[in-house]
Amino acid sequence: MQNVSQTDEQAIRELVHNWLTASKKHDLATMLDLLADDVLFIVPGKEPFDKEEFAASNKEQMKDTEMEAAIDIKEIQIADEWAWMRSFLDLTFTRQGEKPAKLSGHILTILQKNADGNWVIKRDENFVKPEAGS
Amino acid sequence: MQNVSQTDEQAIRELVHNWLTASKKHDLATMLDLLADDVLFIVPGKEPFDKEEFAASNKEQMKDTEMEAAIDIKEIQIADEWAWMRSFLDLTFTRQGEKPAKLSGHILTILQKNADGNWVIKRDENFVKPEAGS
Repeated sequence: MQNVSQTDEQAIRELVHNWLTASKKHDLATMLDLLADDVLFIVPGKEPFDKEEFAASNKEQMKDTEMEAAIDIKEIQIADEWAWMRSFLDLTFTRQGEKPAKLSGHILTILQKNADGNWVIKRDENFVKPEAGS
Repeated sequence: MQNVSQTDEQAIRELVHNWLTASKKHDLATMLDLLADDVLFIVPGKEPFDKEEFAASNKEQMKDTEMEAAIDIKEIQIADEWAWMRSFLDLTFTRQGEKPAKLSGHILTILQKNADGNWVIKRDENFVKPEAGS
């Protein structure tokens, strides 16, 4: 039998992988499945926003845009059905006819294991912003 | 017997209260006691920094400065010896002969219960920054 924490950590790493893969494919339905219904995103310069606002803004932002993403997971800590993760995310957005935009930043994420055993993103505070000179 | 989670939530609220009280008094020793030894602060515009750097920069920043603070704790979630908290912090710094500076921002904090039963701050990602026009 596998160690429960190892299985959970593996499941969280897969969630992150699936999130980035869905982001690249503009697969919003899959992305929304990876979010808790009451998820909150906390980002600079605006009030925390919810799943509905995420869906609306993602659709708008990703229109005609190619994305490349690399994430460095610095640490994952699991406690029962809760987990927290610290990571650093690098993104490159390329819109037809425009210079690629590079964004990066540190992220602190709270995750929760659902009743069905799947991990979802519950809170996400991130500093992902345009790099200087990009 | 008190509910364990209620006791823990109360202990975390007291930690936050003690943190702000110590901040106002420039009581760095008490502040450091409320931080995990391997605490990391994640703030915009610089790399995450540790307890030693916090101590050095706090000493410098607070020199000849009066601070007022108000925190709005939005939610606290406890799982075993781990907890996370979402809050909004308002700060006013007044330095002799200068106009008071107002800062505010959203915070996501990870807390840990030590072996001795005391809660400490483990990770703190915060957007606390000068308010527009301040």
